[in-house]
Amino acid sequence: MTLVNTVCRLAARPVGMPKIEDWQIGDEPTGTPDDGEFLVQVEYLSVDPAMRTWMNAGRSYVPPVEIGEVMRAGGIGRVIDSRHRDFAVGDEVFGTFGVQRYALSDGRDVSAVDTTLAPAPVHLGALGISGLTAYFGLLDVGRPRPGQTVVISGAAGSVGSIAGQIARINGCRVIGIAGGADKCRWLVDELGFDAAIDYREGDLRRQLKTHAPNGIDVFFDNVGGAVLEAALSRLARGARVVICGAISQYNADGELRGPANYMQLLVARASMTGFVIFDYADRYAQGVAQLADWLRSGELRSREQVIHGDVGDFPEVLLSLFGGGNTGKLVLALEQH
Amino acid sequence: MTLVNTVCRLAARPVGMPKIEDWQIGDEPTGTPDDGEFLVQVEYLSVDPAMRTWMNAGRSYVPPVEIGEVMRAGGIGRVIDSRHRDFAVGDEVFGTFGVQRYALSDGRDVSAVDTTLAPAPVHLGALGISGLTAYFGLLDVGRPRPGQTVVISGAAGSVGSIAGQIARINGCRVIGIAGGADKCRWLVDELGFDAAIDYREGDLRRQLKTHAPNGIDVFFDNVGGAVLEAALSRLARGARVVICGAISQYNADGELRGPANYMQLLVARASMTGFVIFDYADRYAQGVAQLADWLRSGELRSREQVIHGDVGDFPEVLLSLFGGGNTGKLVLALEQH
Repeated sequence: MTLVNTVCRLAARPVGMPKIEDWQIGDEPTGTPDDGEFLVQVEYLSVDPAMRTWMNAGRSYVPPVEIGEVMRAGGIGRVIDSRHRDFAVGDEVFGTFGVQRYALSDGRDVSAVDTTLAPAPVHLGALGISGLTAYFGLLDVGRPRPGQTVVISGAAGSVGSIAGQIARINGCRVIGIAGGADKCRWLVDELGFDAAIDYREGDLRRQLKTHAPNGIDVFFDNVGGAVLEAALSRLARGARVVICGAISQYNADGELRGPANYMQLLVARASMTGFVIFDYADRYAQGVAQLADWLRSGELRSREQVIHGDVGDFPEVLLSLFGGGNTGKLVLALEQH
Repeated sequence: MTLVNTVCRLAARPVGMPKIEDWQIGDEPTGTPDDGEFLVQVEYLSVDPAMRTWMNAGRSYVPPVEIGEVMRAGGIGRVIDSRHRDFAVGDEVFGTFGVQRYALSDGRDVSAVDTTLAPAPVHLGALGISGLTAYFGLLDVGRPRPGQTVVISGAAGSVGSIAGQIARINGCRVIGIAGGADKCRWLVDELGFDAAIDYREGDLRRQLKTHAPNGIDVFFDNVGGAVLEAALSRLARGARVVICGAISQYNADGELRGPANYMQLLVARASMTGFVIFDYADRYAQGVAQLADWLRSGELRSREQVIHGDVGDFPEVLLSLFGGGNTGKLVLALEQH
């Protein structure tokens, strides 16, 4: 079996918004598994805003992707060759396989995917890292209590859309912040948010005052920048701000914008806490079981935006995230030749 | 008894660093107590960086001082006339009497001061709001554990100097950040800090790396700005950042500077929490008792910088705080005519 691999490697550290040339895409021979390894044909790639941060040098929650390395990505694929006792040909698996057609793996951090439960893209979204991030971030870090007001930024995104629904299921009043009337309608009409604010329309602070007249008890932030500042200005006493992401800042090419009014944390006796989903690995099974229950009962809705293409389409698909065009979980499904 | 009161009133909302003309100082007739009131001759005024924030309009942890109102200040004085059953002529009392020579009070939030325990200025410092702020902010919000690394900014100030000593007493490694070699020597030689960093000399991040090689577990911040950013870049996993003050930002006349690298909270799985000492009012007695014990045993040292002057000297004394010249608790002792 000699297979041609198509691989997307990081070619340059982007300044500001990445350019297509910041990656190099080319064909390479596919390796063959050694003892204890297996070969995966990658079928679905998870496309996430955080990938932009992995392209930067410097200290972060994961090491940077180095120049020349395969672009890091979570993905789902099928085992097509194996010399690993725990993984057999035909198995559907999730792992950080990278942006490439074929990946060799030693099985570390690779898990089986039960596609009888839900289609593969759902295992990258509501039942995957996105859903788990929403679940543990909201419940463990945000600790909302029934009746409290929860505000979610990036609410139409893969994590935000799940986090808001979990807040609703837990008896909270939920307000989403998203860009555009279509997304806002989806949040309220389909996902059951109590309100949605289009941050592109009008004064965000005023709209928060209207929809959260008693202040925000939990702010789950995926956006940062002006959106974070608006939320800080409306915190209720004892509020919890959950720092999940900062998509507005990922492509900044100058000084990053910290929340100028962070002293509102003092005024409100509030806390702002960061978390990394990997720390919850030993509780993933519990989280997935709960999320799957809610999906089955219809309380939780999952939406995936699946783009069919090739490895070479990855840069464009990733960059589309920063234009604000996507709703739900963005997945690149690799055409199987 | 007809007394002339000298009163300092807010005349204008300062932009940036206050000017002397932002206050108006003048003589007025002193009122006489009604039923349930008493008259205090103010002897000592607490002079604190936070007073600058009270001069601004807008939402904060206390209402702003309005234009024309007596400048708010905590103080200690003697009851010289009373129609209140709980306060007798001759009592030494603490309260928010304002920047004036005589104050009428109905006794709300006024407490007796035991000057046999310590001189009055200590009751504004280590045994007053400054000491209590350090005590509850560090122990309740920061939750340091023995052996952990605690970094204090504004470490030579009234709150920071106490907070650092409490951390030392609790078995932590304590690093102070202060401006100038004299303050740094005082922190290490007199107060027992493990190290002190002069933020005016050299690269603060590098010095933090040197003195806190395993990262910062608790950062107790009185300064904000570049000092906060330097500390965020050196947080240990699970660190707690206590937001007590932001003296570097109080006189900013443009956009305030938020911590541009606040996403380090995510990288470090850390939290940043604000608090207001008034919330601990029902535990003040416990805090004062502990602080007094430490003072008696010599484990805790208190330093007051007492300026003798008149009500008219208040603006200059307050502004001196922002030049970085003072060490310990700044008190204006009103000359008794």
